Amino acid sequence: MKEFFKVTDLNALFDFKSAFAPVATETVPLSNALGRIPARDIPAPLDLPDFRRATMDGFAVPAASTYGASEGNPAYLSLRPPVAMGRPPDFNLNPGEAARIATGGMLPDGADSVVMVEHTDAIDDQTIEVVKSVAPGQHVVQIGEDVTKGEVLLRRGCLLRAQEIGLTAAFGMQAVSVYKSPVVGIISTGDEIVPIDQQPPPGKIRDINTHTLHAMTAAAGAVPQPLGIVKDDAGRLLALCKKAFETCDMVLLSGGSSVGMRDFTMEVLDALPNAAVLVHGISISPGKPTILADVDGKPFWGLPGHVVSAMVVFHAAVRPFIDHIAGLEPSTKRICFQRARLTRNLSSVLGRVDYVRVRLTQAEDGLAAEPILGKSGLINTMVKADGLLKIDKNTEGLDKDALVEVERI
Amino acid sequence: MKEFFKVTDLNALFDFKSAFAPVATETVPLSNALGRIPARDIPAPLDLPDFRRATMDGFAVPAASTYGASEGNPAYLSLRPPVAMGRPPDFNLNPGEAARIATGGMLPDGADSVVMVEHTDAIDDQTIEVVKSVAPGQHVVQIGEDVTKGEVLLRRGCLLRAQEIGLTAAFGMQAVSVYKSPVVGIISTGDEIVPIDQQPPPGKIRDINTHTLHAMTAAAGAVPQPLGIVKDDAGRLLALCKKAFETCDMVLLSGGSSVGMRDFTMEVLDALPNAAVLVHGISISPGKPTILADVDGKPFWGLPGHVVSAMVVFHAAVRPFIDHIAGLEPSTKRICFQRARLTRNLSSVLGRVDYVRVRLTQAEDGLAAEPILGKSGLINTMVKADGLLKIDKNTEGLDKDALVEVERI
Repeated sequence: MKEFFKVTDLNALFDFKSAFAPVATETVPLSNALGRIPARDIPAPLDLPDFRRATMDGFAVPAASTYGASEGNPAYLSLRPPVAMGRPPDFNLNPGEAARIATGGMLPDGADSVVMVEHTDAIDDQTIEVVKSVAPGQHVVQIGEDVTKGEVLLRRGCLLRAQEIGLTAAFGMQAVSVYKSPVVGIISTGDEIVPIDQQPPPGKIRDINTHTLHAMTAAAGAVPQPLGIVKDDAGRLLALCKKAFETCDMVLLSGGSSVGMRDFTMEVLDALPNAAVLVHGISISPGKPTILADVDGKPFWGLPGHVVSAMVVFHAAVRPFIDHIAGLEPSTKRICFQRARLTRNLSSVLGRVDYVRVRLTQAEDGLAAEPILGKSGLINTMVKADGLLKIDKNTEGLDKDALVEVERI
Repeated sequence: MKEFFKVTDLNALFDFKSAFAPVATETVPLSNALGRIPARDIPAPLDLPDFRRATMDGFAVPAASTYGASEGNPAYLSLRPPVAMGRPPDFNLNPGEAARIATGGMLPDGADSVVMVEHTDAIDDQTIEVVKSVAPGQHVVQIGEDVTKGEVLLRRGCLLRAQEIGLTAAFGMQAVSVYKSPVVGIISTGDEIVPIDQQPPPGKIRDINTHTLHAMTAAAGAVPQPLGIVKDDAGRLLALCKKAFETCDMVLLSGGSSVGMRDFTMEVLDALPNAAVLVHGISISPGKPTILADVDGKPFWGLPGHVVSAMVVFHAAVRPFIDHIAGLEPSTKRICFQRARLTRNLSSVLGRVDYVRVRLTQAEDGLAAEPILGKSGLINTMVKADGLLKIDKNTEGLDKDALVEVERI
């Protein structure tokens, strides 16, 4: 087993993403495709729309027949039958002719534009006057104006939002080829941890991390697979990890990775076949004692036991790896930032990325970011926080009133 | 039926939220509670933690026994048995004594702090030397330091994130009382619309809006209920609306609401029992021809038929109403903003809120927001967009290079 015991820079950590391949693909119905990631580029099979459509209620006309028309000098056009919605007109327009048309209607041949109904007056059953000229193409969607045949509709690796779903629907595609949602196994370790449905005896606490990481995994678009609690017993942990990698695309283990008497994660990694520790320690705070290993091509994370540390590492480090194996293009930003003014000075250690919990409050000139202090074992500090403020490794601190970008969490 | 035909200001629209009550409540398992909204304040049933825990690997000590300790002048402490993880120590510490403890371990009585293992040296089996003094409480989480008994754990109306899930787990609560997810009925209208599994004959197009609104509804945390396509036939629409309100908490109808020959939504609202049109026209662009009605205490929306207009109205107007009936506190911001520099001048009409589609690209000094022009019937313009730029009603336009906040969509 290859090992690197040097603490790894947060940015350098992401170089290890390339060690892991994206998950397999599957086909899902369009109604379940929101938030999924296309597995290949999908070209448009035809032009959209494939006929010329009116974008306004009014009259289809040859634009030339309206040139020079004004309130004082209207153009008079002969009426042809109205265009029935959803049907191709069975007539052509000649110069000097108009046909009533509704938004979405198909233009008859000979018409190249639509005069809005507000710019017309009915003279009699057979004639209208037009008081404003239109340009060719006005109030008309041309063939292929939305999408041209062959254009890439859905791009591999780009998140499907409502608009991509709508575009796919427009072409009648009822299913999409997407990457599978990565399955993330979650293991808690520690002799002091009991499942949440048990009353902890003195000295023990309930398993917070499984539930927090479960929710963070789901929020990241992956499928959490809670695998239970392992007491500090390397043999049982090894067996569970082996089982986990049979069904999971990534495994998160929390606890057991700080230097100390419970540090037996490395022992398990030593015993797992085809396992290589890539990172042992990341230069972030909280969260330094983090392990990243490659177990037969899949990422294995040893996360800190303190819940805030585990959450910060998930946010800053694990999530980009989930995105990577989920097939997401690296340019896609899933983190949401909120600009705010810092309420106090914050010091930071050079060479380390600090994540500070902050509460956002409405101030007169925008949002204020108020740091929340507290030990990294206190989950309530994260409940009180609206986001994390990342202080770069090259920064010694931030001044009160600095404008900062808070990452919502 | 009471009617207001004046175009309503976007901000004034939200005054109508109070006409609608939040949906009913239900109890869900904690594992399904992410993104849900608590229906009542939940107080902490006990202190968290309920015993004093070590936050570091090291030795539990009475702090006073380390005072003045340094490398040159270490304090010598007698070793008691190590504290077993997950069990209460069966001994007390006396002054001058120490006991090995791991992170998360329970402090014995008599100890009030933990010396990090790095600041100690073993002299023999029974003695350690401490080379750095600790203060009382150092490296210890006190009883109730995370949460004090009676403190509000979960607040009514606040979105459950991973940290709230974790906090709830810490108290062994396996289920949470939350508001139901609002059910939103979605109806498309128009003689030219066919379901997406049909090949549209000439002059017809596939139903984009149902699928786009379906996805936007799901992204808003509500449950979309697609109800199909109604041809321009008031009788069938009336019957479908009546049926929709039997099971839905809100109904969205798209198409049929622009002034024109297809405007028969008002006719249906006239015929629905206990229906009152609250708003007919909103001063936003695109999306002006929007109807909001109160149908027996539930919101009914007549959305524009053009897909971009319908999406903008959903984003700007419908979604805050979904949040309201979902029980969400108004202070909770679900929209994600991205700060960017505008790439060109944009003009806007005073007295109207304009939503401009923009693409975000990485520029040297941050993100650039490049407006995407195009008719509001072209869904591909939304696919190319990363967000919407809201231009306030009191603004005549924005200058090139202005710093703007783009709402991700």
